[in-house]
Amino acid sequence: MEMKKHSHVVYIVTIFCLLIFTSGTSAQDKRIIRIAKIKIEPTYLEAYRIAVKEQIETAVRVEPGVLTLYAVNDKEVPTNITVFEIYADTAAYQSHLQTAHFKKYKTETAHMVKSLELIDVSAIELRTK
Amino acid sequence: MEMKKHSHVVYIVTIFCLLIFTSGTSAQDKRIIRIAKIKIEPTYLEAYRIAVKEQIETAVRVEPGVLTLYAVNDKEVPTNITVFEIYADTAAYQSHLQTAHFKKYKTETAHMVKSLELIDVSAIELRTK
Repeated sequence: MEMKKHSHVVYIVTIFCLLIFTSGTSAQDKRIIRIAKIKIEPTYLEAYRIAVKEQIETAVRVEPGVLTLYAVNDKEVPTNITVFEIYADTAAYQSHLQTAHFKKYKTETAHMVKSLELIDVSAIELRTK
Repeated sequence: MEMKKHSHVVYIVTIFCLLIFTSGTSAQDKRIIRIAKIKIEPTYLEAYRIAVKEQIETAVRVEPGVLTLYAVNDKEVPTNITVFEIYADTAAYQSHLQTAHFKKYKTETAHMVKSLELIDVSAIELRTK
């Protein structure tokens, strides 16, 4: 009887720990974080800046799963753009690709982009005020 | 008399516009935004991750002028680290370099870093939830 009681406790504690562990890690793992490196044709830099500003402003405002979009350009080579992107999960990212504002941005900027490199990254520490 | 009144209005409107324009742009221009690209010796990757996590957590918590520090590593090449940094202004950045936690991080990680490239960037659009 004593033995049986003990094994029950072990069983419950194990399940409990597994649940905590799973919920903790899955919350972390689900985020999609990416760095896009984009080179723009110099003639179209201003037009590209306007298009990407509009796309980012709309996406973060209307899409619950688009968490962060930071677009910057190098000071030394302004046609080198970097976009730091965080999506809640794969579904949020896939849904973002299907939005009217993203499709408009892709169509409008297709001829402005010389090259695009996408780098999938993992968070080490993300802190902002 | 009519002419004098008119020139006064033009003068006041001009000053007013200049004030709005100056305050608007200086608020934007003061931010220091930078991307640090760091390559880590593979042996020290875990130790480096711990050190950079601690530095970021402390800096954003205790320094009013450290606005954002996002550290990530490439999924494909985990020893390639990118840190996206936003400081309120030059003074905030200079003060950050003098803090005990930043100095500790620099000393602790000096032998772990194979290379460090710092890229000064300008904001196009920065949106986060």
